[in-house]
This record gives sequence, C-alpha cells and structure tokens, in this order.
Amino acid sequence: MSSFRDDGTSAIEWVAAYLERLREYPVLSRVEPGEIRAALPAAPPDEPEPFAAVLEDLDRVLLPGLTHWQSPRYFAYFATTGSEPGILAELLAAGLNQVGILWRTSPALQELEEVTVDWLRQLLGLPDGLVGHIEDSASTGTLAALAAARDAAPGRRAVVASEHVHSSIDKACRILELELRKVPVDEAFRLRADVLDLAGACAVVAAIGTTSTSSVDPVPAIADACEQAGVWLHVDAAYAGSAAVCPELRDRFAGWERADSVVVNPHKWLATPMDCSVLWTRRVEDFRRTFSLVPEYLRSSDDALNLSELSIPLGRRFRALKLWAVLRCYGRTGLQERIREHVRLAQLFAGWVRAEPGWEVCAPVPFSLVCFRLDAPDGTNEELIERVNASGEIFLSHARLQDRFVLRLAIGNFRTMEDDVRFAWDVLRREANAAG
Amino acid sequence: MSSFRDDGTSAIEWVAAYLERLREYPVLSRVEPGEIRAALPAAPPDEPEPFAAVLEDLDRVLLPGLTHWQSPRYFAYFATTGSEPGILAELLAAGLNQVGILWRTSPALQELEEVTVDWLRQLLGLPDGLVGHIEDSASTGTLAALAAARDAAPGRRAVVASEHVHSSIDKACRILELELRKVPVDEAFRLRADVLDLAGACAVVAAIGTTSTSSVDPVPAIADACEQAGVWLHVDAAYAGSAAVCPELRDRFAGWERADSVVVNPHKWLATPMDCSVLWTRRVEDFRRTFSLVPEYLRSSDDALNLSELSIPLGRRFRALKLWAVLRCYGRTGLQERIREHVRLAQLFAGWVRAEPGWEVCAPVPFSLVCFRLDAPDGTNEELIERVNASGEIFLSHARLQDRFVLRLAIGNFRTMEDDVRFAWDVLRREANAAG
Repeated sequence: MSSFRDDGTSAIEWVAAYLERLREYPVLSRVEPGEIRAALPAAPPDEPEPFAAVLEDLDRVLLPGLTHWQSPRYFAYFATTGSEPGILAELLAAGLNQVGILWRTSPALQELEEVTVDWLRQLLGLPDGLVGHIEDSASTGTLAALAAARDAAPGRRAVVASEHVHSSIDKACRILELELRKVPVDEAFRLRADVLDLAGACAVVAAIGTTSTSSVDPVPAIADACEQAGVWLHVDAAYAGSAAVCPELRDRFAGWERADSVVVNPHKWLATPMDCSVLWTRRVEDFRRTFSLVPEYLRSSDDALNLSELSIPLGRRFRALKLWAVLRCYGRTGLQERIREHVRLAQLFAGWVRAEPGWEVCAPVPFSLVCFRLDAPDGTNEELIERVNASGEIFLSHARLQDRFVLRLAIGNFRTMEDDVRFAWDVLRREANAAG
Repeated sequence: MSSFRDDGTSAIEWVAAYLERLREYPVLSRVEPGEIRAALPAAPPDEPEPFAAVLEDLDRVLLPGLTHWQSPRYFAYFATTGSEPGILAELLAAGLNQVGILWRTSPALQELEEVTVDWLRQLLGLPDGLVGHIEDSASTGTLAALAAARDAAPGRRAVVASEHVHSSIDKACRILELELRKVPVDEAFRLRADVLDLAGACAVVAAIGTTSTSSVDPVPAIADACEQAGVWLHVDAAYAGSAAVCPELRDRFAGWERADSVVVNPHKWLATPMDCSVLWTRRVEDFRRTFSLVPEYLRSSDDALNLSELSIPLGRRFRALKLWAVLRCYGRTGLQERIREHVRLAQLFAGWVRAEPGWEVCAPVPFSLVCFRLDAPDGTNEELIERVNASGEIFLSHARLQDRFVLRLAIGNFRTMEDDVRFAWDVLRREANAAG
C-alpha cells in the first residue's frame, strides 16, 4: 500500500492544484477534433507503467482537451459542481467498489441510497409516499418512468409534452416506440394547458425548468387533466429541482407533489459530481412490473426490495455516498445559501442586460438561467457567442426562441462569484463593441 | 484548499487501511434488512458538518452493512477488482467532473474513450472496424444493441438466446416489447445451434461465459445462421471477455469477431472499478438511427460524432480515465499474468473437488468459475452454502443446473491468492463435515 499512499497523495495534490487554478484555463477547449486522439499512442502498452506517468500525461496530453466544467466562468448548458466532499466520496466509493445487485450484496449501499434520496425529498418539500432511487442520468430515469407508464396503460401509446421538452423525451419515446405529441407554449415558453389533448396518452411530461429558458409548465392544471384522464404525470425538474431547497422559491414548484414520478439531478445544481440523478415515484409497483426480474442465481432468503427491480441496470455503484457527503457537508443552510446567491446573480445579470441599450432579455428568469441577445440579426449574435467562447475567458451556450438565436448564461457552479458574472458581462460587451 | 488537502489525505489513508484489512472483515454483511437505515438519522442535517464526520460514520454506521466485494475471499456472482490505479483515476474524474454531451464539451473525454476502448479491442484480439464506447452496465449496453437491432429490421420482433442467457436480456426484451425465444442447451450448457429457429428474429444473443456456469455458446455456428438469415448477432462476454487478453484462451472466443455487437465488462475481470462496460459495434449507423438526436441547443459548428448518439444517456462521465489508468499501470503482460493465475486457480480448485469423495464438479471450467456440489440432496447443499456464507470467512453464490442446486466459486479479484482459494476449500469441507 505504500505506493497507493504515495500515488494517492499525488492525485489529491493534482486535484487540489487543479481546483485552485480553474480560472487560469481557457474554459472551452481549443483543440481540433482528432488532436487528443493523435497525441495518444495508437496501441496499448505491453509493460506496466507507474501511476505517475498517468498523472504526467493528464497534464501534458489531456489537459488541453478539457472543457473546464468546473471553472467558475463556465456558464453553458447547465453548470455543475464537483464539490470537495463529493469528490472525496467518489474516491471512497471506488475504494469500496460495492456492486448493488441485491440488497444483500450491499445493504449499506441500498439503505444509504434509500435514506439520502429521502433526505433530499424532505429538503425539497416533496411529500411522503414518493420512493426514490438514483439513476445515472435524467435520460435514463425518464426512460424508466415512461416504460412503467406505458406498461401501466396498455393500448395507450402517446406521450404528451411541450414543444420545449428536453430531447431525452424524444429519445425515450423512440426507444419505447411511443408517439410524442408536442403541445405549443405560451409567450413565457410554458406548455399551454388549454390545448392539452390526452386522448390515447399514457403519460404527460411536465417541465419545471425547461432546457432552453428554464420556464415552468403549469403543473397544477396539468395534474388536474392527468388525474381526470388517469394519465401518468412525470415531472422533469432535472436542473431546477434543487432550487426547491429554498422555501421562497417553492411557488415555482406548485403541483409537483401530485406527480407519479419526478426527476431531479443533484449532479447539476446540487454540488454532486456526475453521475447522480434522483427519480422518485409513488408507483413502485408499476416500476416493478416493468423492471423486476430475479432469476434463480440471484435469489436469496431475505425478502428485501432490491433497487435493481426499479431500473434498467442490474448492478449499481455506490453513488449514494457522494450525495450523503454533500448533504452533510453543506447542510440545508449551506445549500440554500448557494442556490439563493445564484438566483440573485442571475437577476443581477438580467438587470444589467435590460439596462444596456441594444441588448434584451428574451425570457423570464425564474431560476439562475438568463436568455438574452443583442438587438441585432441572428448572424451578429452567432458571431458574438463564437468570439466570446473562442476567447476562452467564459463559455456560454445558445438556444432558439421564437425563431431567434439567443444566448444563454447559466449560473450554477458553487465556485462562481459575483465577480465572475460581472467578468462575463464585461467580456460580452467588449466583444460586441469590437465587432460593432 | 487546505481542508481539501487534509480531508483528501484522510480519505486516501482510509482507503489504504481498508484495502490492507480486507481479509479481516466478514465477507457477506451480517446486518438485517433495515438495520443500516435505522442507524442513520431520518432527516437531513440543517447545518454543515466536517468531512471527518462522514468518514467517522462510514466506519461506525456503514461498515457493518458492506458486503466486501474487494475481499480476496469474495467468490460470489462474478468477483470484481477496484485496483489502485482505477481507484485514483476515479478521484481524478470526480475532480475534473467532465460531462460528455457533445464532443466539444470535453474533447479529451470523448477521444480518450475512443482510444482506450480501441486499446482494449486490440488487447482482446477483436478485429478492426468495431467501434466502441463505455456504458454503465452490460444491461444498458445490451438494451441499446437490441433497440438498434429491432429498428434495423422492422417487423421482426423476436430475440433468440439460450435458456441460460442473462436476465438482462429478459429485461431488455420486456422494455423493448420483443419476444424472447429461448433455445435449449446441450449437456455442457451451450446453446444448441442445431435447433436454432431464426424466423422473425431481429437478433440472437450468444454468450461467451454464461452467468450460471461460464459456458460458451457455439458462436461460429450461430454466426453462420445469423449471416444467412440477416440477423443481428450480439455477443455477451461481459464476464469472460477479459480473458481474451491471453492468447492461449482465445479458442473460447472463436467467432466473436463476426458479431454485430459485443459487450465486455472491465469492471468485472479487468481491475476497473464500477462502472465500466464496453460495447463495440460494427453497425454505428444503426445505433445512430436509434439514438442520435441533436436538438438546437446542442448544435455546434464542429461535425464530430458525439458518443451520446450511440446510447441512452445524453451526458456521460469521464469513465475512460480509469480504464486508461488500468491498461497503463498493468500493461498487457500484467493483465495476462493475473487472468492466467485465476484460470489456474479455478482448475486447481476443480481438481480438489473432483479428487474428494462425496463432492462433484457440475460443469466444465473454461474460465475462472467452478460449479460444484456435495453429492447429496439439494437441501444439504443449500444448508452448506448458508453456513459457509454466514461464517463470514468466504462468500459464494449458487445456481440451478438440470434442476439441481449447485455452488459457484468465482475467482476474479486481483488480490485473491492461492492461499485464499485453499482457505475456501478448507471452510467448505469443514462446514460439510460439521453438518454431516
């Protein structure tokens, strides 16, 4: 173990130094497609190499090919945080290398998972009776929920969602051979409940925090319609769900307590490293009907529920450990503080944009995402984002709203400070002026 | 970062000490269902706690609830290894916290994944033209392959596999609404190619290393039949595939080079911590037809293939890093050495069983799994395994073959030595005699 201790010390030091230097790296990688591949040997090594060689090549070969999701100046897609307790918990999980297949193959893995997702349920103000487990991604969790919904309503093959629904719903429907029926949105990019048609539908996917604008579908009205038609309501709160930790933001979540299934990704806005997506459902028996399968070689004498009876993979890793570490090392107050600050920074940024002639905010800002643009042709906005991202100083992504190209600034990294958001605004104005 | 460095040092020390003490723990956890849950607070903490408190509760609360998959005396299901380089690479991956969505969101993640799975392809003697990527589990990879196969052959809704096929195939067929047609096996638990009926089939799943006995289906004959009928051949070598790193074991893999898709799990027998399951396919375009979906907010100006176009999740974590670290720190020779030793130990154990009156080996031993039993009623064998596992000294699992209960001893942990296997045999005989 002496070499493990030495290599471990080097690896910890590498990560510590990396986290300290995050603002020094170009946020978006500057390599060309194929460049990293070309810098790696085409064939595997025959003889063992020391771990130090891996660390060396991480610096020399891979570092230029990283897009620094952990940079406080990363504002693209939805920002993420690999927090310190989350990182170290992943180290522990890899050391323990538990494989959750059946309860008895790791009682601690299964029961910690049950407890931590229940802690999170309480933190978010979700009701009792929702049973949770951890998936690798919202895509997988949503696929699982829609499969269970399909099997619970034989003959009904439609899924209904707004035209702003995440692409993973399209993908799930394709895999499950369901028809995805898209409903138009109103001026604030919310599903129009007044034109909801649930004939032949097995499920509705309502979003709290859509990907393009973080808009909030009218969940109470949708829940009413689902209840009346006996249709499964799945709430996709993958990004925004974490904000429910703040009581003053709970109004945005009205109605989600009535969902048949809900997905929230702590690996987005809750300081947990990839991958940790939590799916709760009140319809455990429907999940089991679709996913439970215990062959002879897996039978055991205890009759505990196994988490593999609720999802696609048979084996699961010890992901609960990092969620547990994060919830404990931040506590309710620590998480509230950061989410609140992000919401404040988004409002601040939106205020600067609104106050600046020639710029506009293009959608409401219910959480920490701001959609905005130069009041100029699409081409000008596209060039602006290209230049800004190429500068390496910040990284933003885009969306298309009402057939216009808009920029997205997504705040969510726990290391992002007001100075970083101000810096982003300075870079944006500088590049806009340089082009103008 | 000072606390990260301190906490990191403690975490490394915790893992190092854990790995040193592996033989001291009862292999199978002795807690009752609900015991760990009851030892954890029912509600989340309000205030932040130090990371040291997490480590303390890991020892105090969780440790008794762990089944020690990393114990050299873990012989159940298929044994696994979280090797030292693999563990530290997971620490790095969590620190970098890359999210592979599109190529540009982490060129290094995507290209390292492409390169390492190609290294592994070369190590296993698989042909050029197979394109690989990493999934969380063979269950997910197989589901993806069968979805692609289904969509490539409209109207054909049957999947054909032996009655010994893994339960994940049953689950995938249920999710995809395909009919699973099970073919009987011969006396060595191999699919009987002479009774293969491919009418209406979109795919055949052939196993190299079935779960119950590690038997090898006659892949060349199955490949002939698939070729003739234009049916997708998926080879499930999740456990045994790693053995192909040894040229002298390659005869067991005859025909797999003709597969349309192949799955091998480095997180089983190749020293990589959970989760790392590699899926190769020569039918990339068929995968893209099923899984590719690039919405506006994900479009970018480079035209690189994105790995999310080949599988269910949109985002992927940096799993390639651990496979890279393992392949480099062991090298081809290091991996061969350990696999060879495991195959030798399995033969040694099978020899002891065969030589002992009153015991029998119940299936051929092509790899590192031995199926055996006392020549006694099922009840006696069931009691034997219960007593052995309850002793905490070793952990075995079971299977049912030709309607008889058999014990399975699966060797595969890189820390298992000849002494551990001898110890297992001593415990088994001791408990058999104590009962007899």
